[in-house]
Amino acid sequence: MTPHPFDEAVDLQAQPDGSWLGHTSPAYANMVGPFGGITTAQALTAVLRHPERLGDPVALTVNFCAAVEKGTFVVQARPVRTNRSTQHWVIELQQAGQAVFTATAVTAVRRETWSLDEEAMPACPPPSEVALPQARAPMEFVSRYEQRPITGGLPLVWDGSGNSSLTQLWVRDQPPRPLDFASLSALADIFFPRVYIRRSTHVPVGTVSLTIYFHADASQVAQTGSGYLLGQVRAQAFRNGYFDHTGQLWNEAGVLLVTTHQLVYYKQ
Amino acid sequence: MTPHPFDEAVDLQAQPDGSWLGHTSPAYANMVGPFGGITTAQALTAVLRHPERLGDPVALTVNFCAAVEKGTFVVQARPVRTNRSTQHWVIELQQAGQAVFTATAVTAVRRETWSLDEEAMPACPPPSEVALPQARAPMEFVSRYEQRPITGGLPLVWDGSGNSSLTQLWVRDQPPRPLDFASLSALADIFFPRVYIRRSTHVPVGTVSLTIYFHADASQVAQTGSGYLLGQVRAQAFRNGYFDHTGQLWNEAGVLLVTTHQLVYYKQ
Repeated sequence: MTPHPFDEAVDLQAQPDGSWLGHTSPAYANMVGPFGGITTAQALTAVLRHPERLGDPVALTVNFCAAVEKGTFVVQARPVRTNRSTQHWVIELQQAGQAVFTATAVTAVRRETWSLDEEAMPACPPPSEVALPQARAPMEFVSRYEQRPITGGLPLVWDGSGNSSLTQLWVRDQPPRPLDFASLSALADIFFPRVYIRRSTHVPVGTVSLTIYFHADASQVAQTGSGYLLGQVRAQAFRNGYFDHTGQLWNEAGVLLVTTHQLVYYKQ
Repeated sequence: MTPHPFDEAVDLQAQPDGSWLGHTSPAYANMVGPFGGITTAQALTAVLRHPERLGDPVALTVNFCAAVEKGTFVVQARPVRTNRSTQHWVIELQQAGQAVFTATAVTAVRRETWSLDEEAMPACPPPSEVALPQARAPMEFVSRYEQRPITGGLPLVWDGSGNSSLTQLWVRDQPPRPLDFASLSALADIFFPRVYIRRSTHVPVGTVSLTIYFHADASQVAQTGSGYLLGQVRAQAFRNGYFDHTGQLWNEAGVLLVTTHQLVYYKQ
């Protein structure tokens, strides 16, 4: 059986010094360099596979320092502090001895407590009633995801119109694959740049920093299986070269899996 | 003239190895250890005062690994990648050779571009029409800020009631002090734990990770002067020991200065 392209992409080889050797995946190529979500998943995998890991991811922040060049990279995940139920990680991805990506993560052993979702899943038609998009971006990684935009899909005409950056869409791996923390971290970066949606204008962009808070524990991730996720995202401010976005991903059962934020560079 | 307690708190001594020596500030003490906002500001100050710094902060993520003990600490801010207009930082704060706090930051030289705020400042009465709070937390750092809660102030009765975690408040340094990036980073952590507001119940809490996106450039920060900031914040999910919040700070002129997010540990 051919392995899923995602599993090939996050396949890391342990090195004698505790670091991991990885390689960029042509299947997840973006316009320049790889899809940021796959680099994020590769870095998180270095934590997930670390022999000293305590608990599951609760917070992850990644910073894209430079374009990741095609080929191999070294990723180091260092547990800088281990407490009774939480662990703090510093992660760096290098190519040719230079940092191309930095990250911090927190993993934790969770206990059942009083819980409540305050951000309700928006009322949306089910995936079976939402068509595949008419407009499709040409980057290779886009073919690794099935996306069904409900609102705020890629513009059909790039005419400078637009009055909201809100996108809601159903999304899952293509071909479908049971969700895990690594693939969830990649899915958290699936949203097209908000400036495209708000302005219907193509400008150069690049994510600078991305944060994911994992509300789902391992069992909620597993229960999601290979079902669709409902993604929702919108910008709060576009200002002098940088815009942010704030988003959420729910599973079909309505469980809020992650909340996520990013800051993106844009030109013009 | 007596220096402002904030300036005393972020006063760092350069060390020969490029690190900085700092000290906790009794004026910003929290229940256990210092107010997280002041530790954040101390770490950001190590970047702001670094001789190789390029541009102003655009993104900052800090992770609270352990309680900061009373006394001195060493903070190291390392520029791991410097590009043409952006710079990536890895920051660590140590006590007794142990990491107690990690962070990453991105600084950038900004250029004027098409800009737009999508998250509008909520309609709120001006600071002069909002009373000081009736309920006041006993921690020392609370006296370093003038807070005027419009909605979602600290509960007067801790009776388990509550149906929203939304808080809106006016806030500024006490005594007033012209805003800068360091004090803005501290103000981004001013919001009381959302679980208190949502449940009117006291439970042990601690911020685990905090992210700030700076939309304001240096001139917008300077123009804010010592005026009030309008803070707005709400939780999205409380789940098995961790909740998030998502918030914004505007100045009185309606400029969205920062958007901010955090993940907080809670018990019960």
